[in-house]
Amino acid sequence: MSNDKKTMIVTPWEVSGEVDYDKLIVNFGTNKLTEELKQKMAKYAGFLHPQLRRDVFFSHRDLDWWISNYENDKKVGLYTGRGPSGDVHLGHLLPWIFTKYLQDAFDADLYFQMTDDEKFLVKENLTLEQAISYTYENALDVIACGMKVGKTFIFSDTEDIAQIYKLGLKVSKKITLSTAKAVFGFTDSDNIGLTWYPALQAMTCFLQSDREKQNIPCLIPAAIDQDPYWRVTRDIAEKLGFYKPAQIHGKFLPGLQQGGKMSASQPETAIFTTDTPEIALKKVMAAFTGGRETIKLHKELGGNPEICNIYAYYYFLFEEDDKKLYEIEAGCRSGNLMCGECKARLGKKIKEFLIDFQKKREKAKDNLQDYFLKEMK
Amino acid sequence: MSNDKKTMIVTPWEVSGEVDYDKLIVNFGTNKLTEELKQKMAKYAGFLHPQLRRDVFFSHRDLDWWISNYENDKKVGLYTGRGPSGDVHLGHLLPWIFTKYLQDAFDADLYFQMTDDEKFLVKENLTLEQAISYTYENALDVIACGMKVGKTFIFSDTEDIAQIYKLGLKVSKKITLSTAKAVFGFTDSDNIGLTWYPALQAMTCFLQSDREKQNIPCLIPAAIDQDPYWRVTRDIAEKLGFYKPAQIHGKFLPGLQQGGKMSASQPETAIFTTDTPEIALKKVMAAFTGGRETIKLHKELGGNPEICNIYAYYYFLFEEDDKKLYEIEAGCRSGNLMCGECKARLGKKIKEFLIDFQKKREKAKDNLQDYFLKEMK
Repeated sequence: MSNDKKTMIVTPWEVSGEVDYDKLIVNFGTNKLTEELKQKMAKYAGFLHPQLRRDVFFSHRDLDWWISNYENDKKVGLYTGRGPSGDVHLGHLLPWIFTKYLQDAFDADLYFQMTDDEKFLVKENLTLEQAISYTYENALDVIACGMKVGKTFIFSDTEDIAQIYKLGLKVSKKITLSTAKAVFGFTDSDNIGLTWYPALQAMTCFLQSDREKQNIPCLIPAAIDQDPYWRVTRDIAEKLGFYKPAQIHGKFLPGLQQGGKMSASQPETAIFTTDTPEIALKKVMAAFTGGRETIKLHKELGGNPEICNIYAYYYFLFEEDDKKLYEIEAGCRSGNLMCGECKARLGKKIKEFLIDFQKKREKAKDNLQDYFLKEMK
Repeated sequence: MSNDKKTMIVTPWEVSGEVDYDKLIVNFGTNKLTEELKQKMAKYAGFLHPQLRRDVFFSHRDLDWWISNYENDKKVGLYTGRGPSGDVHLGHLLPWIFTKYLQDAFDADLYFQMTDDEKFLVKENLTLEQAISYTYENALDVIACGMKVGKTFIFSDTEDIAQIYKLGLKVSKKITLSTAKAVFGFTDSDNIGLTWYPALQAMTCFLQSDREKQNIPCLIPAAIDQDPYWRVTRDIAEKLGFYKPAQIHGKFLPGLQQGGKMSASQPETAIFTTDTPEIALKKVMAAFTGGRETIKLHKELGGNPEICNIYAYYYFLFEEDDKKLYEIEAGCRSGNLMCGECKARLGKKIKEFLIDFQKKREKAKDNLQDYFLKEMK
């Protein structure tokens, strides 16, 4: 691996290199999630989510303020989203599963933005019609995560533009091109649609407040690469009479191959929610692990779970029991647990997960429209 | 008058200095309206419009091609618009009156864009709600010009965004920031809404074609300062599978005071369609003329109609009879026609025009919505 590849890059457009999350907290100027905050979430949810226990969500801005609003009987809201340019994979589900936990814990309305305009504008070969069709496909995955009907408002930037354009314009009037360039790395070669788009992503932080004509604290659970959007949004919020949005930042699920996050553009690195269980199993069996070159060496020296993607999948999603997770780790390190067996066990778990998820996803088709944003009367 | 003030500036954002229309044809690379083309329009309209006879519309791009399509039994369309940031004045009506002539002559659907988003984005102190309210106010003026119901489709960028956003996105993907900066003079200090907006103005050239799923030649009658928009649009039209829009370019109605065009931001220079006839008369009586300092001098030396705004109003709008117009001109030059009398006669004509126009404007309220764009079924 060259030095080039090792350089950490974390922006809304690119995540590459070895991600040092502690460094990101310093670079981005966010706050580490404290034990106290985790316990508060656990208190209202009824349990401490594995993603909190294991620092998958690890950083925040103003989460304490957001929770204290809830504690003072104020309504609080949630906002997250998806750029619909392909099928959904497990890396996408990670924050959505956590978002559902927050929705349940804080009885919060969730505004879920499908940025089909952005995806169309940024991807040379994606048509607008394709992006829109992914909006509806991907919405099934959101719903399958267990989001509450009547409290979940999915919307498409293009299909539901009538409900968001005016607020987007008000936001856009407060953001200069220089700010957009500095924050998102736009250049003069970018198209004028793409440079407009951040207004819509920022707008959603205020959408519930605008619709309900009262200021409602908004929390954004999302991977940390999206943070630049919220920095701009925080700068302009008060000028528009809204609260600054709070954030809780997640880590990236690694891909199945070596290096980088799970990426839809490299299908072999990702397990899609639409993969057949058999294909998923094959991908797991072909994954990069922390095992040694030979069984003999593995038995002698033990494996390295820290760099192992199979272990990461247990850790992030597929082994909620801390004791069992520790057994996997210890088995690997001691050389007793072989990669083949470890993969097969994970494959079985993912297979079961997919069978169940795909049922829920299919069922979501029955009332898809109930989850979409309606015009305020 | 300083040299500075004399420098001609003609852009979509600013018109100042003495406008040399022949020079604009050269600078902008457009074509002079030929006698042959004027006669063709006269043929289909049944008469030669005074605005053609007097070169108020004086320049074009591809008008010959647009007319030949009509002659070959192809459907042709019209597009013009208005930035609704205040009341409508006579300078705005000038091209709309001519647009109605074209609509009648060529049996063309007219798409009329109300750019309330642009006005909100460009004017520091205009609220979005104000801009939208001007959309509906100004639409009454459009209708009062005699546009045909069922063939006239007024739309607001903000209120009707659902019908135009997708096409706008497709257009925006083809326009880079550098192009927008070069053509419209945007800088990095401009807001990201404003730099997006040209996509919507360009989009309308293709809107009828997109809605009717067939390529329909579009002609834009508008003052020549809007030409830069259409140059960009022409560059991208074919990439999107549409015809390049044709244009016919008009001159600016002078203001009542010395220098520049009629401007809503200087109310004393403009007669608004909502002015009472009495106020309009007062403005006319206070107007700048080509008369001499004293009656004695005027009788001795004669006046100068070329620099006279009162004469310009007869010429542009209020004396359709060429013989009578010539009598006014000759009377002025000879010193026999005094400014006071000339103003009073114009004032009377404007008064009568306003009384009639305001009746039509009032009546337009009855079926305003019939003129607005509806969703395609």
